[in-house]
Amino acid sequence: MINKIHFDTATISQRQSQQLFSMIQEEASTIGYYRLPDQNIEKIVQYAGTIGEEIEHIIVIGIGGSSLGAKAIYSFLKPMQVPLRKLHFFESTDPLNIAEQVAKIDREKSHFLVISKSGTTIETMALFKYFYAMDDTPSHYTFITDRGSPLEQLAQEMGSQCCYLADGVGGRFSVLSVVGLLPLVLCGIDVAGLLSGAKKVKESFFNDGYLQQSLINKSIFYAKHHMQYNINCLFAYSETLRYFTEWYVQLWGESLGKKQCHSAFHVGMTPIGLIGPKDQHSFLQLIMEGTRDKSITFIKIKDFQNELTIPHTPLPHLKSLDILDGVTFHDLITMQSDAIIQALLDQEDIPLDEIVIERVDAQSMGALIYYYELLTSLVGRLIDVNTYDQPGVEIGKIILKQKLKGKRND
Amino acid sequence: MINKIHFDTATISQRQSQQLFSMIQEEASTIGYYRLPDQNIEKIVQYAGTIGEEIEHIIVIGIGGSSLGAKAIYSFLKPMQVPLRKLHFFESTDPLNIAEQVAKIDREKSHFLVISKSGTTIETMALFKYFYAMDDTPSHYTFITDRGSPLEQLAQEMGSQCCYLADGVGGRFSVLSVVGLLPLVLCGIDVAGLLSGAKKVKESFFNDGYLQQSLINKSIFYAKHHMQYNINCLFAYSETLRYFTEWYVQLWGESLGKKQCHSAFHVGMTPIGLIGPKDQHSFLQLIMEGTRDKSITFIKIKDFQNELTIPHTPLPHLKSLDILDGVTFHDLITMQSDAIIQALLDQEDIPLDEIVIERVDAQSMGALIYYYELLTSLVGRLIDVNTYDQPGVEIGKIILKQKLKGKRND
Repeated sequence: MINKIHFDTATISQRQSQQLFSMIQEEASTIGYYRLPDQNIEKIVQYAGTIGEEIEHIIVIGIGGSSLGAKAIYSFLKPMQVPLRKLHFFESTDPLNIAEQVAKIDREKSHFLVISKSGTTIETMALFKYFYAMDDTPSHYTFITDRGSPLEQLAQEMGSQCCYLADGVGGRFSVLSVVGLLPLVLCGIDVAGLLSGAKKVKESFFNDGYLQQSLINKSIFYAKHHMQYNINCLFAYSETLRYFTEWYVQLWGESLGKKQCHSAFHVGMTPIGLIGPKDQHSFLQLIMEGTRDKSITFIKIKDFQNELTIPHTPLPHLKSLDILDGVTFHDLITMQSDAIIQALLDQEDIPLDEIVIERVDAQSMGALIYYYELLTSLVGRLIDVNTYDQPGVEIGKIILKQKLKGKRND
Repeated sequence: MINKIHFDTATISQRQSQQLFSMIQEEASTIGYYRLPDQNIEKIVQYAGTIGEEIEHIIVIGIGGSSLGAKAIYSFLKPMQVPLRKLHFFESTDPLNIAEQVAKIDREKSHFLVISKSGTTIETMALFKYFYAMDDTPSHYTFITDRGSPLEQLAQEMGSQCCYLADGVGGRFSVLSVVGLLPLVLCGIDVAGLLSGAKKVKESFFNDGYLQQSLINKSIFYAKHHMQYNINCLFAYSETLRYFTEWYVQLWGESLGKKQCHSAFHVGMTPIGLIGPKDQHSFLQLIMEGTRDKSITFIKIKDFQNELTIPHTPLPHLKSLDILDGVTFHDLITMQSDAIIQALLDQEDIPLDEIVIERVDAQSMGALIYYYELLTSLVGRLIDVNTYDQPGVEIGKIILKQKLKGKRND
């Protein structure tokens, strides 16, 4: 993984960098996600082995941090390798969506993973109730929740298996824990590769490697200019990264959008996920000529391992397009991202950087995930927020419960 | 369609409103999209009738304005009614994505719509070449392009049918023209309903109806505060509206992200599409506690016409969730959006409004589309941009062509 930064980091002091690094070193001993690349996955793999071969569909009932990570990885790798089982996500209370999704699964051949940290997530539990009323066979369900949650108690009473979130791992940082790994192992995905990719980034950062300075410089730049560049776009040049950008949006937005710890001030930059070249025809104009409030990170895939080629097809009246003939789509999409990067650099006032991942494999995805988790932690420290909580979503939950109770008393 | 505005519009003067309205009235005589609700669609319907019944797949080869509109409408209506034919969109040069998409279609039973206003869109033409090399039967293709474009000339030389974009209709405003209507008619979608929904909004706006004041007030508020609230979130409470939000992102971003006409200043607000309740678990924290730089518009569906209900399933240890039992998912998702709206209103410093559409049908979608087109035009006039061009994307195209030529000369 390469991270090439095009904005100016010359004014960042050694002292500040060192101070930030120490803060993260300290944090790493208490916040759980830092340790995940080093975990032993044997138990998860073993448990996955107990799910029968007749099961063809894995149904994740979960929302937010309980679904976005596995979805990002599954959809990234799917075009390269047919998964062992199909992974489905039920994460909406939209009745039309539920009906549409249910039609796609064969319930007899499905295993359900009910994932909720607190065990009382409204959407997840509403959907669980919906399925449970049709099928209450304990072995058809696995629960993933916090130790001691009411959902654990339910699982025990039902006689279903229960897996536990590792200590100190928040929902949006849980993709490399059992929350993400179990569904992925069940689909035959190389989770060892995922962790080894993450581990490489971890080591590079903590052991003075290549990514240490790049992550520190980038986070200091972002934090320093967070009032001016309050929007951070991730422009990924591959459709395979579409759900990765959704994972990024949650990670960045929910971690950094806060009242500051030591003030009453609202801070937090806004994440935006874009996919190239498609969004060149949607969002690029705004980046190029709109308000100077955005930083852009391009993600490119070095080797698509695919030789699909535009055939030699000279077309009358379209001679100017002969330049496409014989070009691989891989080369075309790479030239497209490079052309846009160059066009934006020529503007001289849009901060941008590039991340190049090797190929569409588990290692690259693990690296990308851990890179973004570290970046989020770094920026969170600098802008003085608690990166790991989400107090702002509680009020809505309380109001909803009041409404539900009101409905019941109608 | 109801539009309930919660932010303060009391300071907006009658004079300013009238001036803006006159500007739009004038513009409506030259800009093509305003007229689209009144068009005669007979020719489009007739032409669609010439496509044989053996055709089961309609393949749109197009990108940006040539695909986003039809995609928004098709995916909105699909859960309510099985389409006559399946609609597919080829809009990426990602080789993995192309391979994955090709596997889903039966080429023998496909008709291709090649859509490019200029006729030289790189992605579209690369994909056309790819398919054309496998099948050059003229009757398998219909081209939609500007009159006089090289693509029209190609179509004529091939002996394929060609449809033309109406005069003065830009790509991102073209969904209610043949660009959006032909693929939709071919899939059996009620395009007459679509236009009648749009027409209602048009009449309400131009004939002093209910939406006139609401659209004018909203656009003036947005323009007045566009430096503070530089992000406009569309929070739609239904998965059916997911691609509608992508259409909105292009419309808003590409229309408003500009250098001002009479200054060298970069302006333009950033559009964000969100889907509830899913994004409550991703983006809501940032809205609730993050920087005060966002306005939010909620879209709600009044009647999902669906009775899917959470069954009575009291669960041990989860008695607090009994309040869900017997509640329809329709009521749940409505209470969820209302709870979040209330929670945000309690913050008192987040500008928000609600749009309620009647149901998941063509009329409602037509109304929503036209509402957003008008809003975009209004804001564009106020912030002094040319709403209908996109000069910023040209530089990237030129650089790409240089790169392609360089590749060829390697």
